[in-house]
Amino acid sequence: MEYQGTSSGGTASPKDAPKDARDWSRIRSLGPGAPSTEYFPFYGIDFEVGSTDAFETVGKKIPDTTTSIHVGKHDSTTGTSIYDLAIGLQYGLGTGSKQLLKFLTEHIQLIHNPPYRNWQTILSAGNTSAFEIVLRMLGQTGEHLLVEQHTYATVFETGLPLGYKFTQVRMDKDGLLPDDLDLVLSTWDESARGGKKPRLLYTIPTGHNPTGITQPLPRRQAIYRVAQKHDLFILEDDPYYFIQMPTYHPGGTATVTTAPVTSVEKYAETLVPSYLRLDTDGRVLRMDSFSKIIAPGARMGWVTASEQVIERMVRAHEVSVQNPSGFSQIALFKLLHDSWGHLGFVKWLAHLQGEYTKRRDGLFEACDAFLPREIVSWVPPTSGFFAWISVDWTQHPQAGSKSTLQIEKEVYDAAIECGALVVPGSWFLPDEGRGGMEGVFFRMTYAAASAEDVKEAIRRLGMTLRGIFKLETAGGILESRL
Amino acid sequence: MEYQGTSSGGTASPKDAPKDARDWSRIRSLGPGAPSTEYFPFYGIDFEVGSTDAFETVGKKIPDTTTSIHVGKHDSTTGTSIYDLAIGLQYGLGTGSKQLLKFLTEHIQLIHNPPYRNWQTILSAGNTSAFEIVLRMLGQTGEHLLVEQHTYATVFETGLPLGYKFTQVRMDKDGLLPDDLDLVLSTWDESARGGKKPRLLYTIPTGHNPTGITQPLPRRQAIYRVAQKHDLFILEDDPYYFIQMPTYHPGGTATVTTAPVTSVEKYAETLVPSYLRLDTDGRVLRMDSFSKIIAPGARMGWVTASEQVIERMVRAHEVSVQNPSGFSQIALFKLLHDSWGHLGFVKWLAHLQGEYTKRRDGLFEACDAFLPREIVSWVPPTSGFFAWISVDWTQHPQAGSKSTLQIEKEVYDAAIECGALVVPGSWFLPDEGRGGMEGVFFRMTYAAASAEDVKEAIRRLGMTLRGIFKLETAGGILESRL
Repeated sequence: MEYQGTSSGGTASPKDAPKDARDWSRIRSLGPGAPSTEYFPFYGIDFEVGSTDAFETVGKKIPDTTTSIHVGKHDSTTGTSIYDLAIGLQYGLGTGSKQLLKFLTEHIQLIHNPPYRNWQTILSAGNTSAFEIVLRMLGQTGEHLLVEQHTYATVFETGLPLGYKFTQVRMDKDGLLPDDLDLVLSTWDESARGGKKPRLLYTIPTGHNPTGITQPLPRRQAIYRVAQKHDLFILEDDPYYFIQMPTYHPGGTATVTTAPVTSVEKYAETLVPSYLRLDTDGRVLRMDSFSKIIAPGARMGWVTASEQVIERMVRAHEVSVQNPSGFSQIALFKLLHDSWGHLGFVKWLAHLQGEYTKRRDGLFEACDAFLPREIVSWVPPTSGFFAWISVDWTQHPQAGSKSTLQIEKEVYDAAIECGALVVPGSWFLPDEGRGGMEGVFFRMTYAAASAEDVKEAIRRLGMTLRGIFKLETAGGILESRL
Repeated sequence: MEYQGTSSGGTASPKDAPKDARDWSRIRSLGPGAPSTEYFPFYGIDFEVGSTDAFETVGKKIPDTTTSIHVGKHDSTTGTSIYDLAIGLQYGLGTGSKQLLKFLTEHIQLIHNPPYRNWQTILSAGNTSAFEIVLRMLGQTGEHLLVEQHTYATVFETGLPLGYKFTQVRMDKDGLLPDDLDLVLSTWDESARGGKKPRLLYTIPTGHNPTGITQPLPRRQAIYRVAQKHDLFILEDDPYYFIQMPTYHPGGTATVTTAPVTSVEKYAETLVPSYLRLDTDGRVLRMDSFSKIIAPGARMGWVTASEQVIERMVRAHEVSVQNPSGFSQIALFKLLHDSWGHLGFVKWLAHLQGEYTKRRDGLFEACDAFLPREIVSWVPPTSGFFAWISVDWTQHPQAGSKSTLQIEKEVYDAAIECGALVVPGSWFLPDEGRGGMEGVFFRMTYAAASAEDVKEAIRRLGMTLRGIFKLETAGGILESRL
């Protein structure tokens, strides 16, 4: 039987009982109020999952080659597996199950190899849950959170009700600007800013949401040095880390090839190093998620930081989510540990990289074909789910009288009228940042729509922009190119 | 594709896009950044579950009669089911999936039939998560939470870091005393108490943890009237609601019979009415959980309250847990909706009632046989997981010089030395309530231990108590009775 871990405070509680140093095996316990596993009405589960031999070969349809994995109620008793329904469906530990945690800790070691000794990993109930807990744990009401100029809207939605304010740091084509970060902190004026000098930097370093930017290694090193200078704690939110892609070349779709992955270490070397990999000081809290690489419905991620920080997170889990769902943990354990293994997992990730490369290329070929270059510019990303386009609003017929926010809204509404949904850039700004917005941007994703829908949406967006900006319609000619 | 619901504040966000009133079907969306279901590496899941025809018959071993339920990725597209992996493993709604939510809303209607119009149900990530969200939503730092004299330790562990104080309300054999509740509130002195008059009452009305007490209907009605008088909001934490049992009769194990369940409505009539069933005013927030009736690892429960309260909880979910695991939701939906149905579900609950009745009876037969009646007293519960015994500490040889807390610790430690774990009553008190503790109590559970372990633990506890209280050892004679 698994216990619920230790209590959150210094006081004794029923969950403390197993901490006694006495020989536990001889004790007949009438302690923790967990039900008998006899009464879990699930006796076995079979998962039909993708086989590693399918996604080694480009172009092979995965559903054609699946493997069935079985989990029984008492597999750990019979020696069939180290994890089973009796463990996974019982109350668990605030860290997540030791079985899946061990696999993910090994994974962190293999991929990120953190350069200090006392790092630890914990399973979270997804990155949003982890982020919310971390904000409550590390900050105070009225504190400023340093964020990228545009950032994931959930950061505001989560931080605002907790009393956070937001300080934006400027970006260039390589992401967050270390010089601006240093300037903001070096010139911080408590009374002007209405708050103490920030201690927390939130960043999405790979396939940034919404801009798609991936910070190159020198940029990460420069930001880390500024974090050291001002003693910042870095919240590295990195759900797109494994969706890294080669540079886009127009017409390059046919050339996408995935080199066979032969070792986890060699695969790791192909990826841009994470902040965790650079973290000599224990000032990084890295959030990984299954949402973009396995399934969002798992509601599970993993967080890696110093043992002092993870210990506090375990306590927070014990009095809130406790741990991710046992059904999720069982599904992921059987997939990753019992079926794929570490090598199979990264083969899957490499397969996804190839798939998303094709999707990205499809979207940007449509941009090349349908968007008016006179007023729209973009840089195809090398990671993640998002395309980010900049519209030259100064060429708008009423540029003198309309604000950027008004022009953005005009394009957004007209695009929907025309049957295309793209997301306005202002939705990725804090409320106070929207008034003097410097540009008109839109985010588009190639993550889920069919190739046909992507092409059609962008054709419609192109028509919309030409209409609003009174450009000549060249759609007919361009369409023939696709 | 499911969307993540609406944003938490008044500001626009990417999650708002689907709220547009326009005809959504004609729109090609490059909006929400959800991955394609094509890349969920789970293609099918088979659950082997207990069959309803097995647990209709007393004494039949359930694992001998199981049913296999299949869920595929696109069952809702093919018309096989209304829920599938493509929906369940995608991002979901802050309420939980509409499919499982509909089933549980019907279940609430059938069992509790709340007497006001605008009640709603939401899926939670377990009762601890729901409780923590509710405390943050409804109270403020420094506020007093009204609790039973002894209560579930997690209430303190969760409430303390949120800044709650605790005001205990006295109990008798029927639980929380309405007169004491009224007295506490009528004589509330803000400056003496160090806080405003409480607005929240937390209660575990059925199979109370730790005392095992179930409030009878007249008691619930009286407490509800006091809540009306002082405008209290009632947090009804009721994980043991379906573990209701007949009165214990010594030697009655063989007479346990479960009457066949023929309708959900008739089954509901056999249960003590919940506060939700009495709630004409919308002042009750009821927390149900799968932990004690299906499996704790599901990390899922359901909360029922007025639509105003539920709406706030949905917003809180959107910026924290989002929703319970899709794997959990799929497992429970397939079990409850596609396999068992409402009648099958309550047949299972009736089966559990029979099983826990046998377990309870076994424990109290051991108490009858092994515990020294001269110093120990108890009332066998009619619901839940817990036995609660009172030790007459005044008969302790050093009663004059030792505190109740010291005597409790002496018994607890000596029982562990003797190889039996029981939980001290002081662990269910707020810190400030332990000093002047009025009695010595222990909680024991029959939920999981084998009949043999229960008997042996209680035999050892009896020996321990006889030793400490210098009673004649009558173990040999009593043992022959079992």
